[in-house]
Amino acid sequence: MAVGHCPFPTMAPLEGVRLGSAMAGIKKPQRRDLVVIELPATAVTAAVFTQNAFCAAPVITAKSHLAATPSSRYWVINTGNANAGTGEKGLEDARRTCEAAAEQAGVSSEQVLPFSTGVIGEPLPMERLLAGLPDAFKALSSDSEAWKLAGEGILTTDTRAKGATVTAEIDGERFSINGITKGSGMIKPNMATMLGFVVTDVRIEQSLLQRLLRETVDRSFNAITVDSDTSTNDACMLASTNTGVRVETDEQIAVFRQALQGVMTELAQSIIRDGEGATKFVTLDVEGAMTRQEALDVGFTVAHSPLVKTALYASDANWGRILAAVGRAPVDNFDVSRVVIDLGDVRLVENGGRAASYSEQAGSRVMKGEEITIRIDLGRGETRATVWTSDLSHDYVSINADYRS
Amino acid sequence: MAVGHCPFPTMAPLEGVRLGSAMAGIKKPQRRDLVVIELPATAVTAAVFTQNAFCAAPVITAKSHLAATPSSRYWVINTGNANAGTGEKGLEDARRTCEAAAEQAGVSSEQVLPFSTGVIGEPLPMERLLAGLPDAFKALSSDSEAWKLAGEGILTTDTRAKGATVTAEIDGERFSINGITKGSGMIKPNMATMLGFVVTDVRIEQSLLQRLLRETVDRSFNAITVDSDTSTNDACMLASTNTGVRVETDEQIAVFRQALQGVMTELAQSIIRDGEGATKFVTLDVEGAMTRQEALDVGFTVAHSPLVKTALYASDANWGRILAAVGRAPVDNFDVSRVVIDLGDVRLVENGGRAASYSEQAGSRVMKGEEITIRIDLGRGETRATVWTSDLSHDYVSINADYRS
Repeated sequence: MAVGHCPFPTMAPLEGVRLGSAMAGIKKPQRRDLVVIELPATAVTAAVFTQNAFCAAPVITAKSHLAATPSSRYWVINTGNANAGTGEKGLEDARRTCEAAAEQAGVSSEQVLPFSTGVIGEPLPMERLLAGLPDAFKALSSDSEAWKLAGEGILTTDTRAKGATVTAEIDGERFSINGITKGSGMIKPNMATMLGFVVTDVRIEQSLLQRLLRETVDRSFNAITVDSDTSTNDACMLASTNTGVRVETDEQIAVFRQALQGVMTELAQSIIRDGEGATKFVTLDVEGAMTRQEALDVGFTVAHSPLVKTALYASDANWGRILAAVGRAPVDNFDVSRVVIDLGDVRLVENGGRAASYSEQAGSRVMKGEEITIRIDLGRGETRATVWTSDLSHDYVSINADYRS
Repeated sequence: MAVGHCPFPTMAPLEGVRLGSAMAGIKKPQRRDLVVIELPATAVTAAVFTQNAFCAAPVITAKSHLAATPSSRYWVINTGNANAGTGEKGLEDARRTCEAAAEQAGVSSEQVLPFSTGVIGEPLPMERLLAGLPDAFKALSSDSEAWKLAGEGILTTDTRAKGATVTAEIDGERFSINGITKGSGMIKPNMATMLGFVVTDVRIEQSLLQRLLRETVDRSFNAITVDSDTSTNDACMLASTNTGVRVETDEQIAVFRQALQGVMTELAQSIIRDGEGATKFVTLDVEGAMTRQEALDVGFTVAHSPLVKTALYASDANWGRILAAVGRAPVDNFDVSRVVIDLGDVRLVENGGRAASYSEQAGSRVMKGEEITIRIDLGRGETRATVWTSDLSHDYVSINADYRS
């Protein structure tokens, strides 16, 4: 299942950026599962990775290669196997993947970053992966179709490829940002999503690119949850070809940040819309908090509540479950009599209980929609945060109980 | 569904303690939904209540009555309606319930404590509740069958009555502890469970009784989770009739504490065995932690993981999900290479990855059982804690999506 229609967009061409994919049979035959993204020699790369203490071999390797040089030239991504919990052998496999790609492309192995997603704990089938690499390199192309095939080549339990693109202007000059992402379950990113690859053509310092990545990820990938489980392989990459318009002054940065935030948010939301078993796309707007962390804590407590999530699945305006979840959020000296909760345009809770104006009929009308907004005003401060989540359906249980994913 | 067979035990008679129940039609007709527990004039009562900021009207009322006097004489419990999120009207209803029972029994209203469980946010149907009270009083009896009927009278989505009893000796004199509990969903107690009522006949100071209640609840009701949702109505009561053997010296306290812990743990575990949709009873033993809180944090992170819970439901030894959940637990400076994870008698994880000795076949054998123990050694310290949980099944989603509970 998935919420709404999200056709893959037509991507703008980015100078020196090419994508290639192949069917390497890593998990099953006849499935696109190996992707190479090529960046020009001018490119700089920013990255955020999972905070899971058991981080995967490719994450460790990518971090160490990025520490050696911020000028990555190739990102090699396989699906079907996460190369996580694989110990020393896993690290060797990640390094060998980079070496093989580096040899093929004539760059140094540190200029290649590896990414894996799929089953945790199985050894990476290196023979098939290495045998598939030449095909992926042969397919390298800069057109929009190559982005779409790459979007397909990184999926696991996702039901559709996810991309976002924007073209805007700075000082009268056009620039573009293209991104693809994957993720459907084990989604509660902490510093990054399962996998996100974003490329732009602006001219920008690496340190500024890194700062903007972190800021925009915090308000996109770090604000979504399907099932509260943080993956071992989360990574979100942002590269700039450094060939286009310069991003340097406060004004230039503001325009670029807004465009980047748009792409990041659209990619992050596309993960929720395609969340495992999702039938609803839910926006939790938490306002009136003393800190952003407090607002996030309340948002995620509600978003993780299995009772709220099953009520959403059932389109049941069981507001008592929302109230109970808000009440157990880790907020100090919480005066619940000041809390106001709205479901869409219907007031649910005020003065510590059900709003006088509330009717079951009005609540049900909102709950029947596919896209639902729950606004929670804590009445304690001026800060707000938004969290996006999906519901908990029979299909979520089936997907995760019936198949090894 | 429910795990294993848990017949209701034969309860020891406790001097001056009687229980009565009735069908008041509070939610549906022909269902036992109103219970009165009578304590002798000598009794003292200890209590722990929910930490949910939205605590229910009966919780607020019971706390204020207990502050007025620790000598409660009657506990009045209704199921079918939680009287939570009901504002001023809810508080009035809780107080009127106490007044009606006090009048009937000839005690002060502060000597009556009200408890409610069921749907949140609906007004308590006072007429039916008050009309049912005389029947419950008429039924008061001290025999074991009265305990069983009371156990049935407090259930909501539970599939069976839950009781535990122990008789032991201090200084050659026998004492008994009887308890009943309810709870199946919205179970992640924080200071108490949904509802637990425990009575003993020892002679004991109220302050000591309160301390022992808190200590034993921390290692029983506060160590279980079905779905991470803390209820608005949690309460665990412990009364002593103060008629039997004295509990005062360290040795006497040690014997009594052990007996009490046994009853508390059995009651708490009975909630997990009857957890909504439960097909597995899972023990998470976390060892080698630096603090008890750290061990609990790891245990609850694994216990709340929807991916671990669905793998348990599927009897799938998907140890990568356990590893990923341990890795995202809030533990500072976590060196995962020291973590050892055992599934029953099978080693899953060591040295940061899958154990060399592990085989899928061995893992599957353990996962097929109804009772599963997962041992996690963090390798950081000397402290341990145990958490009990259930799996996440299709029935959990059905129970919470198909019915308003």
